[in-house]
Amino acid sequence: MPREPKASVTSSPASPVSITSADVARLAGVSRATVSFVLNDTPGHRVSAATRTRVLDAARQLGYVPHAAARSLRAGRSNLVLMPASVSAIGRLVSDWVDDLHSELDRHGYTAVLHAGRFTDPLDAARAWAELRPAAVIALDGDRFTAQAAELLSRAGVRGLLAFAARPVAGVHTIGFDHADIGATAAEHLIARGRKRIGVVLPQERGLGTLARPRLAGAESVAARHMATVTPVELAYTRESATALARRWPGLGLDAVFAYNDEYATLLLHALQAEGIAVPDEVAIVGSDDLVLSALQQPALTTIRLDLPSPARVADALHELIETGTTPPVPAVEALLVHRDTS
Amino acid sequence: MPREPKASVTSSPASPVSITSADVARLAGVSRATVSFVLNDTPGHRVSAATRTRVLDAARQLGYVPHAAARSLRAGRSNLVLMPASVSAIGRLVSDWVDDLHSELDRHGYTAVLHAGRFTDPLDAARAWAELRPAAVIALDGDRFTAQAAELLSRAGVRGLLAFAARPVAGVHTIGFDHADIGATAAEHLIARGRKRIGVVLPQERGLGTLARPRLAGAESVAARHMATVTPVELAYTRESATALARRWPGLGLDAVFAYNDEYATLLLHALQAEGIAVPDEVAIVGSDDLVLSALQQPALTTIRLDLPSPARVADALHELIETGTTPPVPAVEALLVHRDTS
Repeated sequence: MPREPKASVTSSPASPVSITSADVARLAGVSRATVSFVLNDTPGHRVSAATRTRVLDAARQLGYVPHAAARSLRAGRSNLVLMPASVSAIGRLVSDWVDDLHSELDRHGYTAVLHAGRFTDPLDAARAWAELRPAAVIALDGDRFTAQAAELLSRAGVRGLLAFAARPVAGVHTIGFDHADIGATAAEHLIARGRKRIGVVLPQERGLGTLARPRLAGAESVAARHMATVTPVELAYTRESATALARRWPGLGLDAVFAYNDEYATLLLHALQAEGIAVPDEVAIVGSDDLVLSALQQPALTTIRLDLPSPARVADALHELIETGTTPPVPAVEALLVHRDTS
Repeated sequence: MPREPKASVTSSPASPVSITSADVARLAGVSRATVSFVLNDTPGHRVSAATRTRVLDAARQLGYVPHAAARSLRAGRSNLVLMPASVSAIGRLVSDWVDDLHSELDRHGYTAVLHAGRFTDPLDAARAWAELRPAAVIALDGDRFTAQAAELLSRAGVRGLLAFAARPVAGVHTIGFDHADIGATAAEHLIARGRKRIGVVLPQERGLGTLARPRLAGAESVAARHMATVTPVELAYTRESATALARRWPGLGLDAVFAYNDEYATLLLHALQAEGIAVPDEVAIVGSDDLVLSALQQPALTTIRLDLPSPARVADALHELIETGTTPPVPAVEALLVHRDTS
């Protein structure tokens, strides 16, 4: 059914004229260079207090905003902290953490921006980030970082390179976060509960593959040591996909599933129950992230709690990296099983 | 219990030397200006094919990345599309939409960045965004935009100003999104189901107040016409807060609640049930967003579906705004009640 647009307006085509530093210079009766010295706090240039006041007054009067890019060109760096991430790949657990980190970075005078560019080649990604000349880059899935990408960023003047990653990368300050640990912790628990045929959910949503594959590999390595099997199971975060999976579940011959995280686990739990499959009697389920709603499911969801380092600690480390090029190690992320009623 | 850091490394203090366009010029045997003409595709300058190849080869060999800021200074604009938002204030519904929008912007050659700065004064916010000289700013909670802020951005050369907002703002292309409609739709439904004493959840999480207050006001305006009452109810997104609210629920004398969105609604549903309060017999519940899990709750959650304009349509509109300064209206967001079993 066609819908009528409502409450929409178009900006007037007669936009205000852009104000440049030349306008400020004209009004203040000084050179453009003097405006630049004053507004960018360029070191090594003496400007009298009276001239300084005149320039600042003119800038205020005209509504002139100094250009961060210009300042960063001159100073060789910006106060941007760039975080490569797609919004939806950040789950509820991490999104609150990211918000707190942004507050902490703000406290240090940095502006946090999420860069949403999508790249298959780590060097292409590094090049796109480098173009913005951030003071630092902090990557949540740092296993995509390469030494070559780090060097490119470093050469572009990016001083802080911080990444959550399973393995150290040359030139990058690494905070240990091995997603294989999560899959291994889930598989160990399920095997200890007597399960032998474990499904591992691979979410079909964009951007989650790089996190899901090591979780699968971690479960596989544990299963191999215990005469258990691991079967990858594809699931999209929709009711239709979950219902389709639940319907073919009996044919899969699985007695347990590690469902990537609590959101997929809850979706699958409800879909299996709707098909009359008993949890945990016929299938045990383990999620990850220990979300607020997980303990409230019927039955309450067994999950894995991830202890992330405090945002304040990470912001301090990043600031020290930018200022000095080095910082003490930040504690690694730990995965802890929380046993409830689905396993 | 103290934890030992593991798998953390510090970047080598001997960082690679920063590469500048002067290095590229030296290697290619040309002037710095020529390097700039080639790498920035500056119009109006003729450079021979041979020189061009020599510059590009030298840049590649040295790993030189052109500076987006320099290009934007020269061209007077960047390809950045800035979206002011905190990651956690974007719910699941909107995060998928934002991701798709970013893909569509990418298709047009723009780089989308989320700006996480927090500001109480809209002018301070506009000034911080303007410093990055984005090509466009697109605001999800555009009711914080002011005409003054729009003018400041416009003067700083920001060509596309797009905002989801209840009311038009001078100089801003508005897509109608009235959160009061959501509260009004919920209240109308609850009153039609015979409820008279409606609680409206105010989430205590940072950044949600600007969306929650108009939803409350919308419910209040409907209630005032129907001899019903509306009571604001504070709730944080934690089990503890939900349990505390459920325990004092009988004293509140409410027979219905509009719970801000489906996440808060699901949390409150479980907490009320755990206290032995029957839903919907004693309390009817309405959420918002129609999340995947909402239909799977026991009882299935009544909710409000929000029809957002397609990301492709919004990206096209933004591109046209940047290129031409004008674009046809984009359809407003519509709120539609989905009646299930909690009301």
